[in-house]
Amino acid sequence: MAKRNAFYAQSGGVTAVINVSACAVIETARRNRSRIGKIYAGRNGIIGALTEDLIDTSKEPLRAITALKHTPAGAFGSCRYQLASIEKDRSQYQRLIDVFRAHDIGYFFYNGGNDSADTCLKVSQMSALMGYPITAVHVPKTVDNDLPITDCCPGFGSVAKYVATSMREAAFDVASMAKTSTRVFVLEVMGRHAGWITAAVGLAADEATPIPLVLLFPEIRFDEAKFLAEVDARVRKFGYCCVGVSEGLLNAEGKLMAEAGTKDAFGHAQLGGVGPLIASRVKEKLGQKYHWAVADYLQRAARHLASKTDVQHSYAVGKAAVELALAGHNAVMPTIVRTSDKPYRWKIGMSPLDQVANVEKKLPANYISADGFGITRAARAYLEPLVRGEDYPPYRNGLPHYTRLQNVAVRKKLTAEFKL
Amino acid sequence: MAKRNAFYAQSGGVTAVINVSACAVIETARRNRSRIGKIYAGRNGIIGALTEDLIDTSKEPLRAITALKHTPAGAFGSCRYQLASIEKDRSQYQRLIDVFRAHDIGYFFYNGGNDSADTCLKVSQMSALMGYPITAVHVPKTVDNDLPITDCCPGFGSVAKYVATSMREAAFDVASMAKTSTRVFVLEVMGRHAGWITAAVGLAADEATPIPLVLLFPEIRFDEAKFLAEVDARVRKFGYCCVGVSEGLLNAEGKLMAEAGTKDAFGHAQLGGVGPLIASRVKEKLGQKYHWAVADYLQRAARHLASKTDVQHSYAVGKAAVELALAGHNAVMPTIVRTSDKPYRWKIGMSPLDQVANVEKKLPANYISADGFGITRAARAYLEPLVRGEDYPPYRNGLPHYTRLQNVAVRKKLTAEFKL
Repeated sequence: MAKRNAFYAQSGGVTAVINVSACAVIETARRNRSRIGKIYAGRNGIIGALTEDLIDTSKEPLRAITALKHTPAGAFGSCRYQLASIEKDRSQYQRLIDVFRAHDIGYFFYNGGNDSADTCLKVSQMSALMGYPITAVHVPKTVDNDLPITDCCPGFGSVAKYVATSMREAAFDVASMAKTSTRVFVLEVMGRHAGWITAAVGLAADEATPIPLVLLFPEIRFDEAKFLAEVDARVRKFGYCCVGVSEGLLNAEGKLMAEAGTKDAFGHAQLGGVGPLIASRVKEKLGQKYHWAVADYLQRAARHLASKTDVQHSYAVGKAAVELALAGHNAVMPTIVRTSDKPYRWKIGMSPLDQVANVEKKLPANYISADGFGITRAARAYLEPLVRGEDYPPYRNGLPHYTRLQNVAVRKKLTAEFKL
Repeated sequence: MAKRNAFYAQSGGVTAVINVSACAVIETARRNRSRIGKIYAGRNGIIGALTEDLIDTSKEPLRAITALKHTPAGAFGSCRYQLASIEKDRSQYQRLIDVFRAHDIGYFFYNGGNDSADTCLKVSQMSALMGYPITAVHVPKTVDNDLPITDCCPGFGSVAKYVATSMREAAFDVASMAKTSTRVFVLEVMGRHAGWITAAVGLAADEATPIPLVLLFPEIRFDEAKFLAEVDARVRKFGYCCVGVSEGLLNAEGKLMAEAGTKDAFGHAQLGGVGPLIASRVKEKLGQKYHWAVADYLQRAARHLASKTDVQHSYAVGKAAVELALAGHNAVMPTIVRTSDKPYRWKIGMSPLDQVANVEKKLPANYISADGFGITRAARAYLEPLVRGEDYPPYRNGLPHYTRLQNVAVRKKLTAEFKL
């Protein structure tokens, strides 16, 4: 088979470990020089391909590529950009083919979540529908953990470790203050459509470290009276209560609490998220002093607290993506297959991409406790292995030392510009 | 000198390392058994003394005391409670004397910030004014870093490390997303009256890791037009911008932005803090997509990311407090004395408590850059040593393993109850 170049890009919300997959793709491709020539990265995902804005990863020193293993976020830039179907807009695909042909790109590795899997699937279809030979493999990544088939998604384990650790630490703080001050603490976490991250907050409490915890899942519509009764009961019993709430919590009408809420004096929508909203209800109705935190990007960028298991998964799927492509698989995604809970064992599997794209995996009903405010043993058995192990970045002068690539542009070969 | 018992308590907002000082006080007192008998801890600060709710620390196994070194928050409970002056309310002091006499307490160690130093000073005055012999030493602690005389306050270095690390990580995230999504990220941090923590956010950027950063200090009144122009300029030049804002930011009239703001449709005060408020201005006026985070308790409880220097300071002041008391010093506080910036060198000093109580040390003007939105070299030289070094807690099943003491109550000897 002729030697051809590869394209790799990062898409959607970034994670603490997506660069680990980038490193794996590049290192594995470099180890297969007889089959893969240059590895080009798209600057800002598929946009880099459409605008012929390619990065020559061979210009990066080896140590910079290695340092991707401990550097959060997307080293090549990401994007939120979805391709229309080939039937609807052939011009975008023609442009991709022009760019790929100009740079002899035969391998397409796309690192993302649901939407990005769809992009990757569409690119894979160019082979059959438009006659351009390309092998497209999706590299899974999403903190939301909502890709189907794979047991878990690279990126999730580290967010899970972050939110569980943060809630545990905050709980110790609130417990100290509860006598004369704060009694209720609310932490808002990501995961708009599926409660995986909310469930992970539940790991903060365990047998050795009991914490009065109430979780508000996006899967369960908010029942204010029931919620307040739960919080009240815990404050009475333990002196304090911690609440983990999904940014995607829905009200009784199925509308996002954070949006359905209130407007300020100027008529602007409520500035705060659902975290402060819930906290204010506790104050108004129960009269308890509260504090709230919204971790936002901090939770998904926290490479300093990454899960070692997650780092290993992230590397494995990047490596497997290249190996699957070299083995001739098109329109597939490497998956994490769990073979045992205790001891935790896993291996790499493979899924056709059309079973992955645009499918959202919700939190199973049996992971949520009967009262709707906690997690079950089954959820723990699933979640615990994913947060296990530490993988600290190097520090310089007291702060994590993260790498920035040079991201040297490949000389453009096309004269035509492309308007996004 | 006769052997007498000691009282130790934690007061005010807790930190990631206040328990390190607790450990030091207990370990040092235990090493001086010929002079100090039992070490009693107050449950919830001075309240424990007033209500005769004492904890017998000798009931804790050695490993639990040692584990305090890596456990955040206040292991004995804290309080926000200030004593009136002896002139104003002698009954509180009479009660303290009754409790202390009943339990033969001759040493009083109070671990806190400004307000707590005032409490400690008042207790020390009981000797002279009310004839009860007691030696009172304050153990400094506050994330706000606003105690005078001491070069820095135990607790601050770890918050500084947390906010600088978090902002650096979030900045990498925003830089990845800026092409098609978030361009401005706002992180709200603690420090209502002094901008020490806001200044520490500035460490996120350095020569090796430049980040377009705008800081909003509580010392400088908010000038919206000037602020938006700064953010706009950075987005134009770098593609994105990060903003660190103090929870105590004041508007042009000198009122707290977070409170002076808006009311919601029900007439309630704005739920969000100043972080979301500032972020919404960026959206309205500049049209940029934003994200914001409010770390709240997460920043001061983050033992998983404590500064090793801070841990060492915290231990040293706890140890010194006992040694000063044994040397006969009353109404004093051990201080951190910096003897060299590069290499960083420090030693323990001592300050009379009346020079510390109720005095707030603001950020020096020469630590804020001329434009009012950044930190100077002088600030860096001061801050950098304080975040240096890592001191990881042990992990179990992927999460930090923090200790909980048994906190066995000492049998009460007084029949009278005391109403707070």
